[in-house]
Amino acid sequence: MLGYIDENYETYVKKLQELARQPSVSAQNLGLQEAAQLVKKMLEETGFHVQLVSLSKGPPVVYGTVQSKKNPNRTIVIYNHYDVQPPEPVELWKHPPFSATIEDGKIYARGVTDNKANIASRIMIVKAFLETHGDVPCNIKWAIEGEEEIGSVHFPEFVRKYRDELKGQAGIWEFGGLDIGDIPMVTLGLKGMLYVEFKVQTATKDVHSARAAIVPNPAWKLVKLLDTIVDDNGRIAVEGWYDDVRELTRQDLEAIREMPLDEEDIKKDLGIKHFLRGLSGYELKKAYLGNPTANIAGLWSGYTGPGHKTVLPAVAEAKMDFRLVPDQDPAKLAKNLRDHANKHGFSDVELKLQAENPAARTPVDSEIAKISARTAREVFQKEPAIIIYSPASGPMHYWTSVLGIPTVSIGVNHAHGSQHAPNENQRIDVFVQGSKWVARVIEEFARAR
Amino acid sequence: MLGYIDENYETYVKKLQELARQPSVSAQNLGLQEAAQLVKKMLEETGFHVQLVSLSKGPPVVYGTVQSKKNPNRTIVIYNHYDVQPPEPVELWKHPPFSATIEDGKIYARGVTDNKANIASRIMIVKAFLETHGDVPCNIKWAIEGEEEIGSVHFPEFVRKYRDELKGQAGIWEFGGLDIGDIPMVTLGLKGMLYVEFKVQTATKDVHSARAAIVPNPAWKLVKLLDTIVDDNGRIAVEGWYDDVRELTRQDLEAIREMPLDEEDIKKDLGIKHFLRGLSGYELKKAYLGNPTANIAGLWSGYTGPGHKTVLPAVAEAKMDFRLVPDQDPAKLAKNLRDHANKHGFSDVELKLQAENPAARTPVDSEIAKISARTAREVFQKEPAIIIYSPASGPMHYWTSVLGIPTVSIGVNHAHGSQHAPNENQRIDVFVQGSKWVARVIEEFARAR
Repeated sequence: MLGYIDENYETYVKKLQELARQPSVSAQNLGLQEAAQLVKKMLEETGFHVQLVSLSKGPPVVYGTVQSKKNPNRTIVIYNHYDVQPPEPVELWKHPPFSATIEDGKIYARGVTDNKANIASRIMIVKAFLETHGDVPCNIKWAIEGEEEIGSVHFPEFVRKYRDELKGQAGIWEFGGLDIGDIPMVTLGLKGMLYVEFKVQTATKDVHSARAAIVPNPAWKLVKLLDTIVDDNGRIAVEGWYDDVRELTRQDLEAIREMPLDEEDIKKDLGIKHFLRGLSGYELKKAYLGNPTANIAGLWSGYTGPGHKTVLPAVAEAKMDFRLVPDQDPAKLAKNLRDHANKHGFSDVELKLQAENPAARTPVDSEIAKISARTAREVFQKEPAIIIYSPASGPMHYWTSVLGIPTVSIGVNHAHGSQHAPNENQRIDVFVQGSKWVARVIEEFARAR
Repeated sequence: MLGYIDENYETYVKKLQELARQPSVSAQNLGLQEAAQLVKKMLEETGFHVQLVSLSKGPPVVYGTVQSKKNPNRTIVIYNHYDVQPPEPVELWKHPPFSATIEDGKIYARGVTDNKANIASRIMIVKAFLETHGDVPCNIKWAIEGEEEIGSVHFPEFVRKYRDELKGQAGIWEFGGLDIGDIPMVTLGLKGMLYVEFKVQTATKDVHSARAAIVPNPAWKLVKLLDTIVDDNGRIAVEGWYDDVRELTRQDLEAIREMPLDEEDIKKDLGIKHFLRGLSGYELKKAYLGNPTANIAGLWSGYTGPGHKTVLPAVAEAKMDFRLVPDQDPAKLAKNLRDHANKHGFSDVELKLQAENPAARTPVDSEIAKISARTAREVFQKEPAIIIYSPASGPMHYWTSVLGIPTVSIGVNHAHGSQHAPNENQRIDVFVQGSKWVARVIEEFARAR
């Protein structure tokens, strides 16, 4: 079965290029139907029974299943997404973001590693089982949604609708692979997210800035509001923000301590001199995994072109994403944030909720976690890092909490893939090795009793 | 002579349209040479002797002169600019910004009222004198620069070069005309300006916002810096900012008290409910004319497109314009601002000076001020407003301070011209009446001894 991957991976690199060349930007409603059709076609060609599940709004969920003939009582439930982040700023890409150009053993494209490579990889794995053994080692159920990058807005509908169908003993989440130093990572959870947009509008049109002495400026109001949200030490100053934070257990802290993190490599990659507040070592790792965050993802007002324009803007806006840890409740925190703004005199500022997801966790001693670690040692011949939860977000809690499926996030990604940034890329060697790993996880899971 | 204007103004409306259709955006280095050539051609056709004065950088100054045969000992020195503000945001215009479309007696175009209408008006006035009397009533010297909207960066060179040439007994500045309620305004000064750009760069590339717990965010730094610059009452908190502010005299305060200001009209025009800090009446007018300002003209960081993107930006920037009153020194204040940033822990924030101009003033009892008021009563049959200094900015201090020429700012603008904003427009009736006024000012000035 692993031999099939070695002999045929180039076919699947081509399939990945085909997928990556199909733009599917959920934030811009670009190419989603086309991408769903393409994924459906690829799954059907592989041997899946496929449905396109329409929801009340938004692109469909591609849902594919393959039944095992010899082992129909074990089921693994897989999650991926076919949508990608916006490619902007396009001028910083060295290849056009939907060209899927190969250079130095890497494929460059928006969405190629997040998360189309994992889709292509899992197609290859299932085909490898079917071609080698004429069967899959267990039942495979696979949901691939098209709104992950905008907060999985309608995915809950799918889960409600397919709740009885989505039964299984373990789950594999969308991403994973190698950390800096090519160390395999077994990720057991995701941070949650609250994504909001602030809008301050003080007039119906922009004004000559000569009037700045008497006409309110929305940019000042936005700046003053934002500055109340995080204190000078980076701690979130919204009342009650940390109330429900689940304390890290001794086991969690031990996993964090053992987790490798190449600080110099990250600094070099990002061109930064220091981490936030000069953090390093264990404290840095603890903050990285354990801390809720308040991030300004976008900020704009007035004239942002070249040269100088003396304008007093009518509107100022900001986008913020808050990463959440167990057991923070995004709906409750959204309310706290609104109350905070009101309390500080910003009740006239519009606060629009864009996305929310609670955090998700799978126990370190679950069967699927142990199998993932064991097979990682086998495939990569390295001790894997156990990541108690990834600092990334996603709707994993639907698997772990709503469906009650212990779920690991493993896959074919590598540390310098530039997810969500210009020049996103997928290493082809990791595509091959990571696929072998995931294949072995499925095989071992199928055998376990 | 006024009859010539009544009979021929349509010819000059066409000339104004031709001028307005030539883009000349100094902030974007767009069409400036072409605009200079067009203005030169129009002045030559009128009867001026014209030079294009090249400076070390930037577009040329158009310098035109007409000698008076009968009255060669009196000279009026005029200033205008042929450059315009950027047209953005273009989507808010009801006609394309360089179409110069006429609708309901108004010409719509970027720069049409600021300040191309005054150029066309003064061409018409000089032609009216020459056609009616075969002479101008006094010598006319006219400098028209191409960088006013970006802070007249190279205009000082011109003034230095032409200092001996630029002699005269009075000056007419670029703009002026009717206030709300069609009240003529005699403006005797301009606020100064300090225009700066802040740039915070914390990394060499944007990062997935999952790293927000450990990677510094430049938008937070920028927000925190900006929030130190102005306090919650809108007062500028930079040390020494108000030290050199010249106190308003009793005469100044009297002029402010007499100045009409239709608060409801401004509120309706801008769609605002209240002025800053709930100001109204005399206090509002005093703030408008007398207060130094700190305006955020532009602000940007990260992802500003539709939907949501979870990015931690590498760069955050802001543009700010500070309006200055006599006797604030922009160079000194730029240093204070830098020191302020350093003192508050922002020494790593880049502060780029984009433009600076001190404020300018001409005495209320100067000859040209009195003539302007008297002829305004005659032409408009209304009591004019004496504006001690306009809240707008420009290099007027080169006339009033460097050359020592008492200067009024009068012209053909109207109150709802939307300068620096979408749908900028010029009322054709005010173009005609304002031209008659400026013509009468020149005539009366030429006669005075």
